[in-house]
Amino acid sequence: MMNEYGQTDNLPEFTDVKAAAGRISAHIHLTPVLHSDSFDTRTGARVMFKCESFQRTGSFKVRGALNSVLARGPISPQSGVATHSSGNHGQALAWAGRFAGLPVHVVVPEHSNPMKVSAMRGYGANIYTCEEGARGREEGLRGVLAQTGATQIHPSNDFYVIAGQGTSALELFAHTPDLDLLFVPLGGGGLLSGSLLAMSGAAPRCRVIGVEPALADDGVRSLREGRILPSDYPPTIADGLKTALGSRTFPLIRRHVHELVTVTEAEIFQALVYTMERLKAVIEPSSAVAVAALLSGKVPVAGKKVGVIISGGNLDFNS
Amino acid sequence: MMNEYGQTDNLPEFTDVKAAAGRISAHIHLTPVLHSDSFDTRTGARVMFKCESFQRTGSFKVRGALNSVLARGPISPQSGVATHSSGNHGQALAWAGRFAGLPVHVVVPEHSNPMKVSAMRGYGANIYTCEEGARGREEGLRGVLAQTGATQIHPSNDFYVIAGQGTSALELFAHTPDLDLLFVPLGGGGLLSGSLLAMSGAAPRCRVIGVEPALADDGVRSLREGRILPSDYPPTIADGLKTALGSRTFPLIRRHVHELVTVTEAEIFQALVYTMERLKAVIEPSSAVAVAALLSGKVPVAGKKVGVIISGGNLDFNS
Repeated sequence: MMNEYGQTDNLPEFTDVKAAAGRISAHIHLTPVLHSDSFDTRTGARVMFKCESFQRTGSFKVRGALNSVLARGPISPQSGVATHSSGNHGQALAWAGRFAGLPVHVVVPEHSNPMKVSAMRGYGANIYTCEEGARGREEGLRGVLAQTGATQIHPSNDFYVIAGQGTSALELFAHTPDLDLLFVPLGGGGLLSGSLLAMSGAAPRCRVIGVEPALADDGVRSLREGRILPSDYPPTIADGLKTALGSRTFPLIRRHVHELVTVTEAEIFQALVYTMERLKAVIEPSSAVAVAALLSGKVPVAGKKVGVIISGGNLDFNS
Repeated sequence: MMNEYGQTDNLPEFTDVKAAAGRISAHIHLTPVLHSDSFDTRTGARVMFKCESFQRTGSFKVRGALNSVLARGPISPQSGVATHSSGNHGQALAWAGRFAGLPVHVVVPEHSNPMKVSAMRGYGANIYTCEEGARGREEGLRGVLAQTGATQIHPSNDFYVIAGQGTSALELFAHTPDLDLLFVPLGGGGLLSGSLLAMSGAAPRCRVIGVEPALADDGVRSLREGRILPSDYPPTIADGLKTALGSRTFPLIRRHVHELVTVTEAEIFQALVYTMERLKAVIEPSSAVAVAALLSGKVPVAGKKVGVIISGGNLDFNS
């Protein structure tokens, strides 16, 4: 696949996920794997939840951000790093930048979750507001990059971000080596790509299922058409999954993924409430999509050992 | 201290907590210890949460119930076991009884959380309704004991229940041996008594703080007066903490506890929301009292390593 410079992007492999784990594990939480009898009874499966909601900054995104900041090579200590983000990646990069002693610049779409923006500021990031949608984000980021000279750390299509996100599934496979199925949310594809790389080396028998909101099914349509379709930033409650696939995540997903499924907004909301009631874990809608796929019965799970990565926990109780 | 038969009740010791751990650990979850930068920043302490909300049946109570069912000696396999409970102990005993193949009878005050009652039924327990308050519970249970011949397993004042509840703190001390302070909710005193026994043998340097709702401060008043004062089942949102101390929990707490503090209803509610937002863990008000004491500043914690047992997770999202 050609990138914007007409070159083929290099793609991370399993060894890059292993290297990321060695680089970041000492600085982040080894998140717990939780189990719930209620989920087992309801699904007939044995379900293990890898709880990235308890990760530093509240989501798995800190894995990729920290790996990229530490590994991607020369970053100017004056200019630092920049990204656009609706929340979790921005918080993660703000945390990782502070850890590495770098300035962080985050372009945030207006109407973003104020708790997430306030958390970014709390980690010391400089915040810039842009218009909602893909174009608004890219224009906003271009301006900030020109103004600051910062190095861009893309939320999902970055070589080291993908490798870093894969460390969550790598930990889960180490905890439960004989998983039959793994459900992973799909937005920009960083977590899914990384999880697929982890599977390819650590658990090649495990089927990995990517899950999208039906309202934001650009991933399903992109794989069907064989090219990256843009996202129109649809009004799903899973606000972290609106972004499109990229030049690295698309080929990795096309090569490795076993199945993609979609879930409705009602299924996402029901899964979120059920998870809070039964697993006692607070998750956000972008993470509940994977639980929704498990509960909806769209994939046969009875008798199987099933993993679900629940990521992101920045539900705003004040709004 | 004399019991109702004019005898001195025998009291569990540290070795009974160790024995309980050996008896029950293989059958329940080793609950995770979570950490949150937000809590550290706000308090100036290093805070470790022992998350019993992720325990089987949603609370620490299954530790004591299972230990008692397995250890207390002959229970008629026809008559089984009985208790009164506003929820968590009833669920725990229902689960433990099913595990041991025993019938379980639970006397439930009217207006109890319907999700908890439904969970007890789901584990196969026989449910009996009684009037709210200490007298209603005791009369209801007396009737059920007479009718069924079941063995009573008291929610808190049972030798083996106390020893079982202590296994949670025992696990926390094994995880973090150098805790300076431990906050524990106080209702009937089973969890606090057990935690004090665990401290006495495993972490004698650790100060243990019991926390009560100010509306249900019978524990504070009992220690001040040197005798067990009854609870009038006050209208606190911490509905699991309404019960009075007993002939075993009172002397254990009097002997070992370092301090008791109270928190207001507003402090409890704020702590509950903050814990869900920042720790991403769902807790119930009876558990949020310990967090409230930490956040309220009533006990100096800056620079200390602090443990909090968060127990119970049966928040009903439908009511």
